[in-house]
Amino acid sequence: MPELRKDPIVDRWVIIAKDRADRPQELGDRPLPRASAAACPFCEGHEDETTREIDAYRASGSPPNGPGWRVRAVPNKYPALVPGQPLEPSQHDLYRAFPASGVHEVIIESPRHLRSTTELSVEDLTDVLWMYRQRLLALRSQQGARYPLIFQNVGAAAGASIEHLHAQLTVLPIMPIEMSLALAGAEAFYRSHRQCVYCAILQHELAAEQRLVARSASAGDAGFAAFCPYAARSPFETWIVPLAHASHFETLTRAAAAELARIMKDVLARIESALDHPAYNYIIHTGSFDTSSQDHYHWHIEIIPRVTKSAGFEWGTGFFINPVPPEEAAAIMRSLHFAG
Amino acid sequence: MPELRKDPIVDRWVIIAKDRADRPQELGDRPLPRASAAACPFCEGHEDETTREIDAYRASGSPPNGPGWRVRAVPNKYPALVPGQPLEPSQHDLYRAFPASGVHEVIIESPRHLRSTTELSVEDLTDVLWMYRQRLLALRSQQGARYPLIFQNVGAAAGASIEHLHAQLTVLPIMPIEMSLALAGAEAFYRSHRQCVYCAILQHELAAEQRLVARSASAGDAGFAAFCPYAARSPFETWIVPLAHASHFETLTRAAAAELARIMKDVLARIESALDHPAYNYIIHTGSFDTSSQDHYHWHIEIIPRVTKSAGFEWGTGFFINPVPPEEAAAIMRSLHFAG
Repeated sequence: MPELRKDPIVDRWVIIAKDRADRPQELGDRPLPRASAAACPFCEGHEDETTREIDAYRASGSPPNGPGWRVRAVPNKYPALVPGQPLEPSQHDLYRAFPASGVHEVIIESPRHLRSTTELSVEDLTDVLWMYRQRLLALRSQQGARYPLIFQNVGAAAGASIEHLHAQLTVLPIMPIEMSLALAGAEAFYRSHRQCVYCAILQHELAAEQRLVARSASAGDAGFAAFCPYAARSPFETWIVPLAHASHFETLTRAAAAELARIMKDVLARIESALDHPAYNYIIHTGSFDTSSQDHYHWHIEIIPRVTKSAGFEWGTGFFINPVPPEEAAAIMRSLHFAG
Repeated sequence: MPELRKDPIVDRWVIIAKDRADRPQELGDRPLPRASAAACPFCEGHEDETTREIDAYRASGSPPNGPGWRVRAVPNKYPALVPGQPLEPSQHDLYRAFPASGVHEVIIESPRHLRSTTELSVEDLTDVLWMYRQRLLALRSQQGARYPLIFQNVGAAAGASIEHLHAQLTVLPIMPIEMSLALAGAEAFYRSHRQCVYCAILQHELAAEQRLVARSASAGDAGFAAFCPYAARSPFETWIVPLAHASHFETLTRAAAAELARIMKDVLARIESALDHPAYNYIIHTGSFDTSSQDHYHWHIEIIPRVTKSAGFEWGTGFFINPVPPEEAAAIMRSLHFAG
């Protein structure tokens, strides 16, 4: 059973997930196995190699756990968080731990052996985003569910261990430090400005344009803007933010999902072109399950190309050193032209 | 000129250091060049390939910037922080930046082409640690110097770009978030317990023994303990902590430097044996330059083997997932026997 442990000095938690361990000698740099469809547990026809499916979009009449699906959600086979564990912290003056209770699902994004989101059609990516929404709606009322995170790891340098395109959905029983810090910052800005800080950033970036990568032309309330953030931690880090204020991803409409799919595909194609298909993570930051709508928080997607290595300086300070100014990254991405 | 930029939402800074940039197309996974001594700018005889030396331990009579040295400090050729810049923040409602003013030095730890600290003799490593102390003492009274960090990156996966054994020393004009969080946690513990939290952890680990890796037998006040921390972020993460309370590394005595060299070499050899020579970082966490002695802070060294990859989950939450419980890592390291 994985365990959540709190650092005795700072408000940071780690998950000690022994069941996921290889033998220590096997840790370290390994290339991602370039599985062919024949050997891939996520490809259509291999449904018996995954855990049993929780949800799927399927051809009508096709039974669960067999072929015929377009998007498929299954429990993670090596979960870092396990449902249904009571939240009874161990009592110790210095050290606190409790069972890592929560949810850890995998969303398999295509029946075909795709390697990047840019290989999905806009229609298929819309379905994927719609499944994200559907899983969040299904999970938000679970007992003890507090903070949901959907993320994708593409490439070994981004932490992927399976090549076939998939996202992971975790639900944590506690608020993670990144979200606590963001919420505290957003609340402080809201108190002093009576405005959502993400809305203020959007306004600024749309007007200034030097960090803008793409924006919806005519999608109205279902529109999005993509820009490189002012304090980008990584070269070509890009955020995609809904133009209309909304704190929770799961309030997405079908029209907005389609527009988000269009802009995500466009932005990721620009990143792949500029950096020659880098490893990347994308992360959906959304409101916690114990709130429904917040004026000071604004859901968004952060795309982090993994082309620099964190070193002792980053571990020691929490700072990041970024060798590409976001203004330059955005200019390069704007200058790329695509047929599609 | 590199620039410090504050994130508009959270209290996190990035350094935009364009001068360090390759062309974006050249970013990404590159193996560390396995330079021979003939091609290495840090090897003895190549002193004209580095910036001019600031400090060195040399054979008596050998002139600066030539052969004859044992340890050598030079300014970083591609600094992320540059001395002597005024701290005038740009004024903007959302975005704050100022010149990245500070110090960025390289300490070359051997005239020979060594790749790991374990290849140094205890005597040579004592000299290296003594040079760390000497540089901190020299820099602590510089105008605007606030927070010093000494760290070592060994191996490409740990962010090293030059193979030849070296450490880096940075001095920041502001307190980094990692140190702010640690200081806040340590202060809170001190207020409620009237004890340094690191001293409390030491007591616990020395008594419990299950996470202990090594300890000084008879070094008295110059002794150290090495243990895997309770909430280890990485497999085999190990801290080395002085047994006697001290907030600032630069108060190290020569006897303590010699004992620290002995225990560092021993611990790093155990890590290299257990994980088959992993990439690693070590980081010296020490009190800030605007304080001289603090009852609630305790300097220490954190060794982070880089055998797991941070993925979307870590970026999104600030949590770490560690597949090897620190109790197991410590037991494995204790069980290893060395001739030396």
